[in-house]
Amino acid sequence: MQFQLTDELIEKVEHLVAAQNDKELKNLLNEFHYADIAEILDELDLDNAVYLIKLLDSETTSDILTELDEDTREKVLGNLSAKEIAEEIEELDTDDAADIIAELSAERQKAVISEIEDEEHKAEITELLAYPEDTAGGLMAKELVKVYETWTVAGCLRRIRGQAKEVTRVHSIYVVNKEEKLIGRLSLKDLIVAKSEQKIAEIAKENVDWVNVHDDVEDVARIMAKYDLEAIPVVDNDQTLLGRITIDDIVDVLKEEAEKDYQLAAGLTQGVEADDSILDLTRARLPWLFLGLLGGVGAFIIMEGFQEAFNQYKMLFFFTPLIAAMAGNVGVQSSAIIVQGLANDDLKGSINSRLIKEMLLAALNGVILAIFLFLFVWIYNNEIDKALAISISLVAVIIIAGLIGTFVPLFLDKRGIDPAIATGPFITTSNDILGILLYFWIAKLILGI
Amino acid sequence: MQFQLTDELIEKVEHLVAAQNDKELKNLLNEFHYADIAEILDELDLDNAVYLIKLLDSETTSDILTELDEDTREKVLGNLSAKEIAEEIEELDTDDAADIIAELSAERQKAVISEIEDEEHKAEITELLAYPEDTAGGLMAKELVKVYETWTVAGCLRRIRGQAKEVTRVHSIYVVNKEEKLIGRLSLKDLIVAKSEQKIAEIAKENVDWVNVHDDVEDVARIMAKYDLEAIPVVDNDQTLLGRITIDDIVDVLKEEAEKDYQLAAGLTQGVEADDSILDLTRARLPWLFLGLLGGVGAFIIMEGFQEAFNQYKMLFFFTPLIAAMAGNVGVQSSAIIVQGLANDDLKGSINSRLIKEMLLAALNGVILAIFLFLFVWIYNNEIDKALAISISLVAVIIIAGLIGTFVPLFLDKRGIDPAIATGPFITTSNDILGILLYFWIAKLILGI
Repeated sequence: MQFQLTDELIEKVEHLVAAQNDKELKNLLNEFHYADIAEILDELDLDNAVYLIKLLDSETTSDILTELDEDTREKVLGNLSAKEIAEEIEELDTDDAADIIAELSAERQKAVISEIEDEEHKAEITELLAYPEDTAGGLMAKELVKVYETWTVAGCLRRIRGQAKEVTRVHSIYVVNKEEKLIGRLSLKDLIVAKSEQKIAEIAKENVDWVNVHDDVEDVARIMAKYDLEAIPVVDNDQTLLGRITIDDIVDVLKEEAEKDYQLAAGLTQGVEADDSILDLTRARLPWLFLGLLGGVGAFIIMEGFQEAFNQYKMLFFFTPLIAAMAGNVGVQSSAIIVQGLANDDLKGSINSRLIKEMLLAALNGVILAIFLFLFVWIYNNEIDKALAISISLVAVIIIAGLIGTFVPLFLDKRGIDPAIATGPFITTSNDILGILLYFWIAKLILGI
Repeated sequence: MQFQLTDELIEKVEHLVAAQNDKELKNLLNEFHYADIAEILDELDLDNAVYLIKLLDSETTSDILTELDEDTREKVLGNLSAKEIAEEIEELDTDDAADIIAELSAERQKAVISEIEDEEHKAEITELLAYPEDTAGGLMAKELVKVYETWTVAGCLRRIRGQAKEVTRVHSIYVVNKEEKLIGRLSLKDLIVAKSEQKIAEIAKENVDWVNVHDDVEDVARIMAKYDLEAIPVVDNDQTLLGRITIDDIVDVLKEEAEKDYQLAAGLTQGVEADDSILDLTRARLPWLFLGLLGGVGAFIIMEGFQEAFNQYKMLFFFTPLIAAMAGNVGVQSSAIIVQGLANDDLKGSINSRLIKEMLLAALNGVILAIFLFLFVWIYNNEIDKALAISISLVAVIIIAGLIGTFVPLFLDKRGIDPAIATGPFITTSNDILGILLYFWIAKLILGI
């Protein structure tokens, strides 16, 4: 039962829209999951997409809107009135509703919010909009099933029927005391297997995981992955139950985090996809390429500066790409390991012990590689002094490159800056320059120039 | 309620183990989630870890075993007898049980399986072991709640109490016909809000997502993320219900996939963590560094080969690091975008159209960068011919590098090879060499050497 987005399907939809064959369109699209309809809409012209959004009922289109490509959604919303958007918002869970509204301009946000009829929904969305995007508060939804510790199991089941209609997936039922403070949890299964007259307080599990509304979403994701949770309640500093985060949102966070880190390591400044426009791709790629260009110019200036000293050692110039490449490769490896360790909260021990470990590791790797290089140079032209100069430089450069690759992400992380910035072109370019500088300086020293 | 793995805690545990203070240890550890106990065990000496595994009851230790670092688990299992391991296996869900057994040698696997007392459990685990690790069959568990379409709601609730005790999280209840074929699904919520005398066939939702037991886990992850699923049933080619995959396993798959891709892009050959031994880290890092070394030697040979031609154009040699660096950067960017696009199944259109797009994009970026470079060289030493030679070479090199970075991952993917191999040092090294070669060749042409 796999949905296939074929050209035929898209053409068929376009055809039906052009003919304004509403009945056929509804028949066709009602077969599909909203995520699949969103994929279709991403491929249509804007007019056709808006036509379909207005055609289908709000319950379906609201979900479709959440699944659309960000660019498509922006254009589609731009073609809907504030009232029409508010109608979609009414159908959504509060977290998705807040996310969509947050994408609008401040002015439009006010207009849309004022058109929301359900006062409770409006108040909840407004509350959620106040939280920063990358915190638990910005990710959570207000929809959850909450029971008081004083209720009985029977009374619980009765009241839950009402609450549960609102909540798409129940997961855990949260138990609060009369001050609305989170004190425990239950599952539907627990309720079903319990005796009707038991009090909630008796069967509730006290051991409930929670996150604070100000916690970083990456920490929330890590906790949920570690404890295999599918939903986690969000509380404020007084343990008042405020909302909950479900695992599907965390899966999205994990995917976006992984993509962001991967793109930073490749030297891309913003989220781009292969099918974005050439202009968007250029905007994402050019900045880091320009940094690389500056680094290359820096290398040129350094080499020019040393050219007198090396007139009799031309060969040493020819090894510059090798030195630069090794410095870059080692730096990239080191920074990648550190950045992953930071993301998984796996790093124990002090920065100093880590730097010492990296130094030993780089020294080991460097010496092994330098031996091969020494043998090559010696066999190639039988001059031990040159072979020594380049080999020893390689070891030194690898050690320094490894230390930089280890230190910079840790340093950034301690200052609250995303360490992933220090991967990719940043590391390769700076290590290239430092490597070349170090190489010539050491070679000069060894060869007595 | 955040668990903190402090040195004090580890010392306390080591102290209690040394004193063999079993009562205190149990009191202390029973407070913790098994994932946290696993973190503690990862930090202890092997003897202490094994002591704790033998001390705590199987229900807890079996879960702990699944959460241990792979290396720790290997050592711990090495210190348990086949019978002791079988006792842990009895407590685990079939998917975790199969995963742990699969890590043992073929000989030990047989020994452990023969010691499993529950015949049904043994048969199910044996069935799961037959599936390849990276397929739906290798990821799924046999535990699920299954009801027949002919039952009533009341009868269902009665029988579920028995099944549900086995299943940690119920999610959807799967509806089968009498031939055991999957025909629909229900949630516990649906059961609770329905009338007791209704038949399951009446309230079951026919629209049930499923995956085939032979599907790739990455496809399963993508489907579950796309449709916001928390569990998905696994069927064979005849739609017979075989098992189910839950979202927590997918979260693990997503994280492992992201880490693997990230590490390949950084030039690390196997899963390593920052805290692994220097030897393990060397084993992971050295191979790609050696490839970089070979590339550097190749660059040296090429430059040496061109040295006669360039005796009057020394400056051109000094730009070699720049050319190599740009070729590498562009290649890394292109391959990263393609690899991500492949992972998200986002790429539409033919390979040719993609290569043409990349050529235009690279040409645009290349020309912009070449203009800056031209101005720099011209201002630096007022020689237009050299400025032209290097700038035009830069454009050509960037275009070729972009095309290679786009083509190679696509080519590998079509041949069924992991395209992520073509990121990182593979691309940078090959692009360095090709870039330098192309640079000199074009410069020779332009300068008429």
